[in-house]
Amino acid sequence: MNFTHKHLLDIESLSREDIELILDTAIPFKEMFTRSIKKAPTLRGKTVVNLFYEPSTRTRISFEIAEKRLSADVVNVQTSSSSVVKGESLIDTVKTLEAMKADIVVIRHSCAGVPLFLSKRVSASIINAGDGRHEHPTQALLDLFTIKEKKGKIEGLKVLIVGDILNSRVARSNIFGLLKLGAEVRLAGPSTLVPESFSKKGIKVFHRLEEALEDADVVNILRIQLERQKQKLFPSIREYNHLYGIDEKSLKNAKSDILVMHPGPMNRGIEISDLIADGANSVINEQVTNGIAVRMSVLYLLAANMKSESKEEEN
Amino acid sequence: MNFTHKHLLDIESLSREDIELILDTAIPFKEMFTRSIKKAPTLRGKTVVNLFYEPSTRTRISFEIAEKRLSADVVNVQTSSSSVVKGESLIDTVKTLEAMKADIVVIRHSCAGVPLFLSKRVSASIINAGDGRHEHPTQALLDLFTIKEKKGKIEGLKVLIVGDILNSRVARSNIFGLLKLGAEVRLAGPSTLVPESFSKKGIKVFHRLEEALEDADVVNILRIQLERQKQKLFPSIREYNHLYGIDEKSLKNAKSDILVMHPGPMNRGIEISDLIADGANSVINEQVTNGIAVRMSVLYLLAANMKSESKEEEN
Amino acid sequence: MNFTHKHLLDIESLSREDIELILDTAIPFKEMFTRSIKKAPTLRGKTVVNLFYEPSTRTRISFEIAEKRLSADVVNVQTSSSSVVKGESLIDTVKTLEAMKADIVVIRHSCAGVPLFLSKRVSASIINAGDGRHEHPTQALLDLFTIKEKKGKIEGLKVLIVGDILNSRVARSNIFGLLKLGAEVRLAGPSTLVPESFSKKGIKVFHRLEEALEDADVVNILRIQLERQKQKLFPSIREYNHLYGIDEKSLKNAKSDILVMHPGPMNRGIEISDLIADGANSVINEQVTNGIAVRMSVLYLLAANMKSESKEEEN
Repeated sequence: MNFTHKHLLDIESLSREDIELILDTAIPFKEMFTRSIKKAPTLRGKTVVNLFYEPSTRTRISFEIAEKRLSADVVNVQTSSSSVVKGESLIDTVKTLEAMKADIVVIRHSCAGVPLFLSKRVSASIINAGDGRHEHPTQALLDLFTIKEKKGKIEGLKVLIVGDILNSRVARSNIFGLLKLGAEVRLAGPSTLVPESFSKKGIKVFHRLEEALEDADVVNILRIQLERQKQKLFPSIREYNHLYGIDEKSLKNAKSDILVMHPGPMNRGIEISDLIADGANSVINEQVTNGIAVRMSVLYLLAANMKSESKEEEN
Repeated sequence: MNFTHKHLLDIESLSREDIELILDTAIPFKEMFTRSIKKAPTLRGKTVVNLFYEPSTRTRISFEIAEKRLSADVVNVQTSSSSVVKGESLIDTVKTLEAMKADIVVIRHSCAGVPLFLSKRVSASIINAGDGRHEHPTQALLDLFTIKEKKGKIEGLKVLIVGDILNSRVARSNIFGLLKLGAEVRLAGPSTLVPESFSKKGIKVFHRLEEALEDADVVNILRIQLERQKQKLFPSIREYNHLYGIDEKSLKNAKSDILVMHPGPMNRGIEISDLIADGANSVINEQVTNGIAVRMSVLYLLAANMKSESKEEEN
Repeated sequence: MNFTHKHLLDIESLSREDIELILDTAIPFKEMFTRSIKKAPTLRGKTVVNLFYEPSTRTRISFEIAEKRLSADVVNVQTSSSSVVKGESLIDTVKTLEAMKADIVVIRHSCAGVPLFLSKRVSASIINAGDGRHEHPTQALLDLFTIKEKKGKIEGLKVLIVGDILNSRVARSNIFGLLKLGAEVRLAGPSTLVPESFSKKGIKVFHRLEEALEDADVVNILRIQLERQKQKLFPSIREYNHLYGIDEKSLKNAKSDILVMHPGPMNRGIEISDLIADGANSVINEQVTNGIAVRMSVLYLLAANMKSESKEEEN
């Protein structure tokens, strides 16, 4: 089976089969990490540009390592040190990258829709590494991979996402993916961050954490984005921690084998306690490892598509 | 034929044969970009340092991609994150790079003459990536490559450069190259930016765009460097656009196959209109592609020189 | 003989044999630099992360070149453009790098003890690239390599270190290394920066430069860290230069073959004069070359350890 998309812009437009193909393809890449030489020639002679308009360590490094382990030529562009200083428009920047024959452009931008906009105007493959409050598809893919690896399946699982659902691209991408793969999605948080209107087929909204955690197989804890909120949408950090923080107390009545996930970076002591973050149920570090495997899988599938395209051209 | 220079500091000191050798050598590198693996082993085991004392996206990325496609070990140094913080002098920085056995140092600096100064004091090959208002030789080489590719020749062509000639290293390098290759050079702009004194054998100065464009085969439009000018050297942006902006109106009486060029990044709506920038006569994106091919050619020729030097040492 | 350490955290905990093994292993790497292809496959498929919490050009570039010449996949993380913005704790950052299966993490941090702290919590090999006022082991190793190369031995030599000993991690690492290899260590500087209490078996403290230089085989001149001192610990720059600056006058009665060393970047005209920095006794540029060879040696030995570890796992 082939991956039929030229870009990875979101989870919303992927089919269940697309997602499963990405997850299955990631397995051998993850196995590669246990070998002493973690390197495959897949992207040799391909140019990948990481174009980050928002600061990021984890996601940028994760992509960069994935690309380098696939032998790509990698170029990093971050806004602060870029000719954005000279006032070049986004579209001209990407047209420039296209003219440089970049094969893949990984982009993070604070505005929703930028990756889609670019994908319609350039010939390189675009990977969305997070666009505003829209989507962060590779984060959802690595979360799905982790759940499937640990639980053996996703269908039928009760997966709770806790936090600022309203403003979270991680939550949006996860919700699309979980629904497509047949999980029951639960959302918990204050009503300012988790409006009732989010409740629909397959999604349940909770405002009391205890109820939300009942029978849940997975809890995915969002980072409280202090730097992103201009208005205070919850009473206080202390109040948030008291009502929605995941700690030993809140997990007391949860399933004993509940998976604890967090996309990182964590605010320890706010949305998650130290004991839980480093505890036996936590797969937070595993998520990081899986992130590289899943990104290698996406890069591999997009590159395989290019190859078949150029073959057609040659005939 | 061999390239006999150890450095690429400017166009002024190159011979016509030198320039033609660089342009001819770039052709197979450009062809390589259509292949699925864009990679040659030329610089394997060589260390190239990109030392940028001015912010730059295009030029830095273009060099970086060229270097990586030639399999070099590439190190980027940009001022903001460098030990310039600690007050190290330029010459000590470059002596350090030399001691690290860097084979090639690509340098951009806001002071004219810095690459020449360095070339006399270190053993690495120096490539000037733009020095103050002096020269930007690889930009001129890619412009010449683009004209030759599109027009089949350069000799006898009428090439118009529009804009702030006085302060432009791009213009200076282009003028030297065009004259050496036998083109007729035209310069247009307000008399504050294009003084009469620039007129000499082979160069005509114009203050009315319409006259300058008559019979021109190529128009190369300079970026208005708003950030570089401290005094206002023209009445206003609106006035500049009205008198010297290249748009459908100003090109109405130009040759129908006039090549429209711009070194980028563009100020759309100021020195060039959207319709022209993206129109059929524009080769602006092609210039970007050619930039990588020409830089690979320069790197290749300088490295070939090193090889013959070390062979002599061995004997 | 094998290097038995998993990390390189300091010189203090190395044995004389450890140090000699690193120095001996660096010799063939230095020889490699004279070849036209400066590349070995040692770290192919290994991921090395350079995590710099303090600005640095020399040390970062030196490590980066060493890593790339050993064919590693290299990722740079510098604080300014990192998710330190998002307030992630140091330990979570490094846990993340571990989860990404980074094999080696090179870290520079303004707090003493950070590399040791990390080494106890992660499985990657940690290399200390300078931690606060504690140690800078690879700097000492390259200094020792340079002395041994030039003088044929270290045992019995009189090695003078001049400057702000109290605050210098370079001095601390050098002192440990020199004593282990049997040199006589001399320290010179104002009593505020070189307290009497530093005097012990093998170490002599001087406040008059002339006396300190008598019969010295090597003078290693520390950088005056203007940016690091909050209180003025010496009367003035001019006074410091007068009393402790190394110039033609102060070296007049020194041994004619005294080695002049400086870890860089130099404050020319303050702690060292131009004539001496660029003179016949100076090995300052040689130190830079040796820095890469010694860092390749350390990377090689740590990687060799990993290989034997994984072999054991396989059995």
